[in-house]
Amino acid sequence: MEEIISLCKRRGFIFPGSDIYGGFAGTWDFGPLGVTLKKKIMDEWWNYFVENRDDIYGVDAAILMNPRTWVASGHTATFADPLVECKECKSRFRADKIADGISESVTTEEFLATHTKCPVCGKENWGPIRKFNMMFTTHVGAVLPDDDAELAEKNIAYLRPETAQGIFTNYKNIVDTIYPNIPFGIAQQGKAFRNEISPRDFILRDRECSQMEIEYFVHPDTWESEFEKIYKECDDFLEIRMGLKPNDINHLEVAPEDRAHYSKRTVDFMFKYPNGEEELMGLAYRTDFDLQNIARESGKSMEYRDKITNEVFVPHVIEPSIGVERLVLAVLSTAYTEDEINGEKRVVLKLPENLAPFRFCVSPLLKNKPELVAKAKEVYDLLRKKYTNVTWDDSGNIGKRYRKQDEIGTPKCVVIDFDTLEDGTVTVRDRDTTTQTRVKISDL
Amino acid sequence: MEEIISLCKRRGFIFPGSDIYGGFAGTWDFGPLGVTLKKKIMDEWWNYFVENRDDIYGVDAAILMNPRTWVASGHTATFADPLVECKECKSRFRADKIADGISESVTTEEFLATHTKCPVCGKENWGPIRKFNMMFTTHVGAVLPDDDAELAEKNIAYLRPETAQGIFTNYKNIVDTIYPNIPFGIAQQGKAFRNEISPRDFILRDRECSQMEIEYFVHPDTWESEFEKIYKECDDFLEIRMGLKPNDINHLEVAPEDRAHYSKRTVDFMFKYPNGEEELMGLAYRTDFDLQNIARESGKSMEYRDKITNEVFVPHVIEPSIGVERLVLAVLSTAYTEDEINGEKRVVLKLPENLAPFRFCVSPLLKNKPELVAKAKEVYDLLRKKYTNVTWDDSGNIGKRYRKQDEIGTPKCVVIDFDTLEDGTVTVRDRDTTTQTRVKISDL
Repeated sequence: MEEIISLCKRRGFIFPGSDIYGGFAGTWDFGPLGVTLKKKIMDEWWNYFVENRDDIYGVDAAILMNPRTWVASGHTATFADPLVECKECKSRFRADKIADGISESVTTEEFLATHTKCPVCGKENWGPIRKFNMMFTTHVGAVLPDDDAELAEKNIAYLRPETAQGIFTNYKNIVDTIYPNIPFGIAQQGKAFRNEISPRDFILRDRECSQMEIEYFVHPDTWESEFEKIYKECDDFLEIRMGLKPNDINHLEVAPEDRAHYSKRTVDFMFKYPNGEEELMGLAYRTDFDLQNIARESGKSMEYRDKITNEVFVPHVIEPSIGVERLVLAVLSTAYTEDEINGEKRVVLKLPENLAPFRFCVSPLLKNKPELVAKAKEVYDLLRKKYTNVTWDDSGNIGKRYRKQDEIGTPKCVVIDFDTLEDGTVTVRDRDTTTQTRVKISDL
Repeated sequence: MEEIISLCKRRGFIFPGSDIYGGFAGTWDFGPLGVTLKKKIMDEWWNYFVENRDDIYGVDAAILMNPRTWVASGHTATFADPLVECKECKSRFRADKIADGISESVTTEEFLATHTKCPVCGKENWGPIRKFNMMFTTHVGAVLPDDDAELAEKNIAYLRPETAQGIFTNYKNIVDTIYPNIPFGIAQQGKAFRNEISPRDFILRDRECSQMEIEYFVHPDTWESEFEKIYKECDDFLEIRMGLKPNDINHLEVAPEDRAHYSKRTVDFMFKYPNGEEELMGLAYRTDFDLQNIARESGKSMEYRDKITNEVFVPHVIEPSIGVERLVLAVLSTAYTEDEINGEKRVVLKLPENLAPFRFCVSPLLKNKPELVAKAKEVYDLLRKKYTNVTWDDSGNIGKRYRKQDEIGTPKCVVIDFDTLEDGTVTVRDRDTTTQTRVKISDL
């Protein structure tokens, strides 16, 4: 993991957030290569699940939502971690992360019985366990810092802790404007925020992340077969579009006692990250839990009328949900390779062609030969007409350029040398095998 | 404007945010067609300014940034509107919006002298003008609602009020990892938040918006010519990629007394919206104001060493900045047309082909003729192999379908009828002219 973090920073994939000011815990900034990789991953998902299908519609809802959203969803009441404070040094921790063998619903008594010492000062003098809601709060509208608490309370709002509710709250808008046939899905990509007490593990547990979620609405009688279909599609997406290896994914059928109370089936897709197995995505059958909550809170009907049978019912929901940063890290972990070429250690990102930030790197063998540079520019312009994301590199010597392009995952390096001027062929060097082939410019 | 808002809601472009709960002031949700239009607009910008160029690099910085960012940029001290409260009914207003002829820096005395009446209760009993900072505040880390004020103050953070500072704070990361030649730019697309006292004018003045900004770093001696180049590129982008009409854009050279104190030149691109002229984008020469602020606040050097001349200097900056929602509305306003076809009033969105949510709509003339439906599906599948964003419509009768596709801006409707079964030709109906042409399926 340390090697990947180092590569990400060194090559401009991912920097610590607010780096220039010493960082800001739990935030990360994507640099030039990272933003391209992230964008390609998100576009592939959108293409696979929305553009290429007839039955899934996109939305892009606001991050700031009416607070009743989170009352209905249960987040206001239950989206909380057990917080404990050391009375000696005032450090605060997630109780279930510093004590062994206790769960998120630990009581003060249970926690004290573990006789955990403060990880900071080493003492054992704890305050009570308090519920810490992970939603970031803010105030919307003209509330000043010196205002009275009542007005502030009235104007409270939250940064959405998930994109899913921006989908559910638009279910009725979609049904009323698009008239979709059931089953149908609504998809969203966007930011979500969780005020983690202790952000950690690089981009795996950050305070601000991007999610890609689909709520797929089905007739209650068909949920099992629809679940299987989406399950297969998620696997195909991860394997075919993202290039992940099936062996690195562990499909965990969540046991009834560990599932949300309303869910009759949940599968966690666990990925073997360099620092251990962690959830990459979740697939959950959520029944009509969310739509019924919204119906109750809004007083509006969430019923759907089948166009053929005229049957009226509240659809049930299957939800595939994936964190973009977790997916970026899974792709990077899969691609990251150390090998040896002619006795020298090499770091190479074996990214799939559809995800590599650059598809081609074009360069002149020598940068101080104007005729090579001119010819290389010609080839460069030619390739850019056909492809986006072609890069130019004339820094250092050719060996250094290969090492750099290997590290950033460029599949092919195209090198213009003196033979090019003679016979119109170039060297195409393959990232994974390092083999070099002579190719005519016209065949590139 | 009302017609456009109505169309947007009716056809699934843009809904009020949190619609199901009666809305949430200043927020808007993009529906299936809106999200496609917005995505295409953002992708065109990214392609034009980042992918198609060698000198502009992308970043995607976190929304939550170290609060020192906003001290350095001046937002903590000055990003404020004059707030005034009616002592009678407790309503709060932006003073400069309810009184005539006063500016954002109005004093209490100046405001009282205008003898403005409260727009809600009609009385004239005002409290003092107070500065209302438009940044949304939140608390990061384990701060509970009943915590002490000191801890809360220490953990304060802001939702970024602009994407620009996420670029400036990454300037040094880019210089240190990418080693760009000057001039070079850094581009970002992303959300920004402004706690408007009175959000209004549909998506023009919302509390949550998306921005597309570039900071273009130049040698101080060259800013004037670089400014002219980018000026031209912005115009080309708006005209060629967005289909805006030059006559609808008024280039406003901002007078010295209206410019930010550090700027030596600013051009506001004013667009003629249906409800009047409003800023669409800004182009500002910001000198080295931002980099010097960051150098001072961080204690780190923002100097750049020219690779050829070895000259060391802090680059100056030219900033083109555009609001995505404002651009979406400019595109919709330009496209929105009411005309008359055979004596019937018609609403049509004459969107450019590269921005229309759907490029083609395929449908069978009659939906109860299985042989027509089967043939139409065949044509549909054929087109989808070549294009994303092909839609299917077999609802209502053909006239209704045309009206719907006109309203959502689909350039071409492809209709399969009985002749298709005979001779393999289809009707291609043009959105703008409504002319119908017979075309062979193989020529589509």
